[in-house]
Amino acid sequence: MTRNDIARDRIPIAVLGATGAVGQTFIRLLRDHPWFRVAEVAASERSAGRRYADATHWLEGEMPADVAALTVTPCRPDSVSSSIVFSALDSGVAGEVEIAFARAGRFVCSNAKNHRMLSDVPLLIPEINAQHLAVIDAQRKHRGWTGALVTNANCSSTVAALALAPLHEAFGITSMFIATMQAVSGAGYPGVPSLDIMGNVIPYIADEEPKIEAEIGKLLGVVNGNAIESASFRVTAHANRVPVEHGHTTCMSIGLSSPATPEQVSDAIMAWTGREEAMDLPSRPHRPIVVTTEPDHPQPRRDVMRGNGMTVTVGRIRRDELLDVRMVAMGSNTIRGAAGGAIMNAELLVTQGYLARP
Amino acid sequence: MTRNDIARDRIPIAVLGATGAVGQTFIRLLRDHPWFRVAEVAASERSAGRRYADATHWLEGEMPADVAALTVTPCRPDSVSSSIVFSALDSGVAGEVEIAFARAGRFVCSNAKNHRMLSDVPLLIPEINAQHLAVIDAQRKHRGWTGALVTNANCSSTVAALALAPLHEAFGITSMFIATMQAVSGAGYPGVPSLDIMGNVIPYIADEEPKIEAEIGKLLGVVNGNAIESASFRVTAHANRVPVEHGHTTCMSIGLSSPATPEQVSDAIMAWTGREEAMDLPSRPHRPIVVTTEPDHPQPRRDVMRGNGMTVTVGRIRRDELLDVRMVAMGSNTIRGAAGGAIMNAELLVTQGYLARP
Amino acid sequence: MTRNDIARDRIPIAVLGATGAVGQTFIRLLRDHPWFRVAEVAASERSAGRRYADATHWLEGEMPADVAALTVTPCRPDSVSSSIVFSALDSGVAGEVEIAFARAGRFVCSNAKNHRMLSDVPLLIPEINAQHLAVIDAQRKHRGWTGALVTNANCSSTVAALALAPLHEAFGITSMFIATMQAVSGAGYPGVPSLDIMGNVIPYIADEEPKIEAEIGKLLGVVNGNAIESASFRVTAHANRVPVEHGHTTCMSIGLSSPATPEQVSDAIMAWTGREEAMDLPSRPHRPIVVTTEPDHPQPRRDVMRGNGMTVTVGRIRRDELLDVRMVAMGSNTIRGAAGGAIMNAELLVTQGYLARP
Amino acid sequence: MTRNDIARDRIPIAVLGATGAVGQTFIRLLRDHPWFRVAEVAASERSAGRRYADATHWLEGEMPADVAALTVTPCRPDSVSSSIVFSALDSGVAGEVEIAFARAGRFVCSNAKNHRMLSDVPLLIPEINAQHLAVIDAQRKHRGWTGALVTNANCSSTVAALALAPLHEAFGITSMFIATMQAVSGAGYPGVPSLDIMGNVIPYIADEEPKIEAEIGKLLGVVNGNAIESASFRVTAHANRVPVEHGHTTCMSIGLSSPATPEQVSDAIMAWTGREEAMDLPSRPHRPIVVTTEPDHPQPRRDVMRGNGMTVTVGRIRRDELLDVRMVAMGSNTIRGAAGGAIMNAELLVTQGYLARP
Repeated sequence: MTRNDIARDRIPIAVLGATGAVGQTFIRLLRDHPWFRVAEVAASERSAGRRYADATHWLEGEMPADVAALTVTPCRPDSVSSSIVFSALDSGVAGEVEIAFARAGRFVCSNAKNHRMLSDVPLLIPEINAQHLAVIDAQRKHRGWTGALVTNANCSSTVAALALAPLHEAFGITSMFIATMQAVSGAGYPGVPSLDIMGNVIPYIADEEPKIEAEIGKLLGVVNGNAIESASFRVTAHANRVPVEHGHTTCMSIGLSSPATPEQVSDAIMAWTGREEAMDLPSRPHRPIVVTTEPDHPQPRRDVMRGNGMTVTVGRIRRDELLDVRMVAMGSNTIRGAAGGAIMNAELLVTQGYLARP
Repeated sequence: MTRNDIARDRIPIAVLGATGAVGQTFIRLLRDHPWFRVAEVAASERSAGRRYADATHWLEGEMPADVAALTVTPCRPDSVSSSIVFSALDSGVAGEVEIAFARAGRFVCSNAKNHRMLSDVPLLIPEINAQHLAVIDAQRKHRGWTGALVTNANCSSTVAALALAPLHEAFGITSMFIATMQAVSGAGYPGVPSLDIMGNVIPYIADEEPKIEAEIGKLLGVVNGNAIESASFRVTAHANRVPVEHGHTTCMSIGLSSPATPEQVSDAIMAWTGREEAMDLPSRPHRPIVVTTEPDHPQPRRDVMRGNGMTVTVGRIRRDELLDVRMVAMGSNTIRGAAGGAIMNAELLVTQGYLARP
Repeated sequence: MTRNDIARDRIPIAVLGATGAVGQTFIRLLRDHPWFRVAEVAASERSAGRRYADATHWLEGEMPADVAALTVTPCRPDSVSSSIVFSALDSGVAGEVEIAFARAGRFVCSNAKNHRMLSDVPLLIPEINAQHLAVIDAQRKHRGWTGALVTNANCSSTVAALALAPLHEAFGITSMFIATMQAVSGAGYPGVPSLDIMGNVIPYIADEEPKIEAEIGKLLGVVNGNAIESASFRVTAHANRVPVEHGHTTCMSIGLSSPATPEQVSDAIMAWTGREEAMDLPSRPHRPIVVTTEPDHPQPRRDVMRGNGMTVTVGRIRRDELLDVRMVAMGSNTIRGAAGGAIMNAELLVTQGYLARP
Repeated sequence: MTRNDIARDRIPIAVLGATGAVGQTFIRLLRDHPWFRVAEVAASERSAGRRYADATHWLEGEMPADVAALTVTPCRPDSVSSSIVFSALDSGVAGEVEIAFARAGRFVCSNAKNHRMLSDVPLLIPEINAQHLAVIDAQRKHRGWTGALVTNANCSSTVAALALAPLHEAFGITSMFIATMQAVSGAGYPGVPSLDIMGNVIPYIADEEPKIEAEIGKLLGVVNGNAIESASFRVTAHANRVPVEHGHTTCMSIGLSSPATPEQVSDAIMAWTGREEAMDLPSRPHRPIVVTTEPDHPQPRRDVMRGNGMTVTVGRIRRDELLDVRMVAMGSNTIRGAAGGAIMNAELLVTQGYLARP
């Protein structure tokens, strides 16, 4: 998109947790967004009242001048007026804050883990499960909220689920093994000490494996009445931190209900375009998934920015010795797997009529 | 061991492929070996005739002065007189050269892949399968060799097999997934270009997955008459190169014949001491396997030199969602997984009477 | 620039040494160039006759489809018809090949070191010394060439010289120290083995220090009759390789003829716009030099792509304890310091009337 | 040394700041020390009262079992009984705490920067300036202390000063330029975030340049009455952080009073053995400085552990274009440049009669 596509009256939005690494990514990605503009930045009491530029240790590129000049507000509904609220909050505080905003009539698009697995909270990747938005009505009614809450998944779950969705739709997944090699940017800032990770692998990330094992099923699940019902296959995960800055790589072995050759799997992925509702969202990349035929790809440093960080690259599709098929999927943990995913979810709320178009 | 334990009349040995990275590791590890001393260094015709110090781009630490002064000989039996020959040759030439030496009455301990999977060639890890040496007699007779050939396994196979042996003995392995994160030193020198691997993961290593899938079974196999018969379980492997200098990390999900809890698996590994024949070999570490209880270990940079690089560290033993148990095993690819393994195999040949003690 | 600015009839150019790392950078940078298009790719006899896509191990991003389909030609004037020839050749062959092309009427813009220090060969950075082009007439006449040869400087020399030009113009440089920390991409591909540089510093780069010491003076020199005369100050250089992918960092201590405070130096750099002749060249960045006030910048990973890799970032301007002023300058070694620099030189040849505009 | 050399009744010592990275290095290095044993570990109030093993995030290798079982005490003289106290305290608290201990009769060997530049406090490197101990009597008298305080220098200053001492003694240094490339371990733990340093250079370390510029002169200074007088030459420093784990590399250009060729400089360094008083200290390496003739050394990863981390490696001794001679010196920042240096200082206090021999 170019600056010409930017709406004259963009929708003002607020970023909660705006000074942290994920908050900064929201601000970077929204700089030229056609529909949204960052109107409010909220953070902890410690930062509230200061200029955003002064309260923030900015990590990458140049801080947008208009945001730099904003005054940081507290993370309370009475201090924030935007209807759309992006939550980049730590899970330690996200739980109550997000509920307060939803209760106060705001549409919260959260990157935090706290509410992801609630059956009436969509865990959205628009190309995969835009139809999960249907539970929002029940959510609002049941919880007495005038706003609503939608979430995006963990970064690794997101990368894997995008690669898996075409297989699940075409052949049905019955079980899977996933080993991840995750970038340090996934741990925020300051995050992983250099003494821990330079020339090293840390074969453990707190809470990561259970999240991956639960979220993939929900992402590929179905709406059943007022609830989202997870796909029933079992997932076993091995999560590792590696000395990579950006991009999570996942190795997967997958069992299928209907047998399929690697070629058929590759064809299914290449043919897949995903849900119709996602087609015209501004953040949707030209191709949500790309299959590479280079034998030693996908590689995080070389493929992570495909589709401006919104495309997942899949490669090495081959027969599995135990299950049916093996492959490697890699994608951006900070863009598709975090802030970019949440922004696309908000775009879906607009096109689906929950919020007025700009 | 100290210099006092070094035999006065150590057995002279030759290193084939002595100028390469693996060859250098042999020379480093044999510097103070109690039974063996490097008497001959052989390499390609290009290097033959030159002083070892002049023919070699030495990579780590100081070159032993006695070896530096040796003249490089060609890799031919008529140019090499030692009875024990360590092969650090590239697979492109190892095939014929090793056979020529075995035919000429030499005991070849090879790190090359060429003959590993032959049913009458032991693929040795003394603690696991010292009894596989039994097929040597048939090998010599059948092939008309006056010498013999034994091999050590691929670096990843070695690390995994040591961690798996106690489980296979106690519970029986039925199937397994393995995802590896392998150090760049595994690719030799110059090996992996820095532009390919810095801040990156390469999810492919040529030929590596089939080797891992085949070798683990043979390492855990049994002798059946004149042949070694691989264990029958199936292995599916995902091999990755990561920006680590030394130490291969492996994530495994394992299915067992007899159900076992993670605690039982951990106990079985901790109780395991391996084959009696290996007990007194000079290179055998105090503990071939150590189970760490630190939640984020084993880590290559911090654990790789345990037991002077001969100990495999196992951690994160936990329930698997699909099979029975998950765990992480890490060990030295250049020592236990290459030169150190081959040296221990030669020690076994000595204690088992194939070669005279020093 | 956008695709709309691209001339309908772009000038066809040839890249010599097109399959190497620098050759690939030329092709990436020329993909959307407004005046030039890659019409021919030439390389060694070994590659000649093959499709470019087949002859090349492509390193970064996607290969332009039109170039992929080209047939590689030999590096001989009779095999190449373009008037503008970019030389990304190794110095081992660049010497004779470039002369052959210049003699055959081609305008050679070379990145090779071979002819840089000849007094009738411009060592060009258009913002600094566009007027050095004046020696071309003498070059052609004296050497009997119908074409001509211009060069760009070594990557470190380029970064340093851009930062130094404003100081030399305003205060006169009398002497300087420079210590460089250079990225691995400066060594081409495969270049630096990962085992040599991961977690390491190599305090030596072959031939680099004499190049830096000589080239900075020539870049800041004057035209004297038919020759370029180097600035007379002395330079002492310390060149180091560090584990960075892209971007050379230089620390400099500088002595000045007219005393100046750090503030005055900073003001001089910020006010500097460079030679008028360079103003409208398509590759000239909005600002050739940016002074950062962040105390811990410039940093290669975070600042290298400023101005699409054509801007040098200067920081930490402060008093020197020995000479007059200290500062840090950092810029792209592969873009401004190599292919991008050569392209800008060709643009200058066009605007200065040596070649027809598209 | 071997365990046989360890005195039966080693002197009990205390480590202040024992839970941090430098404190841990003290404990690792003292594990088998022949004269000293870690009897007490002191740290902040937050850690006091806990088992050392529980209060500490141990970083490297295995924690000595006897230390693991100690109870952490507060950093107060009334809680600590050892006569020798090693201070690994942060500069934020070291100032007052160290004075309290010296006043209370303890011999404080400090790694903190707070008192290094006081004229009656020795800044010791025994091989260079053991005679500076002479000011201790005045220190104690003047300040009314029954104990005393000695310090070791900043890690970069230490590496540089060892390489410079032979030159200063032989030829007299008149001025110098130094650019450092410092390892992340120099920043402690958690220290440098991986997102800041992976694939990057940070051309700034807070307070580092003034420390280097001041300390080198004091290290090479003379005792004048009751005060240490710094050498009078001027130093200009450029301090950089690079993605290296261990080992600080320094590039130096040096001016000399008496002209000397690179060969003479090299000879002077190789002939140098340093102060007689240091000869028999247990931590003194066989050679305090080694000159390497390999053209691309010293390198941190490959040379840092020379002399168990107590030897500085010097290389690339060559003519300077501006001053007299250029060279590269590299050494361990955590051992020689921190804990190992402080331990050697304590050894000197013993041999010089300030403390009883064990």
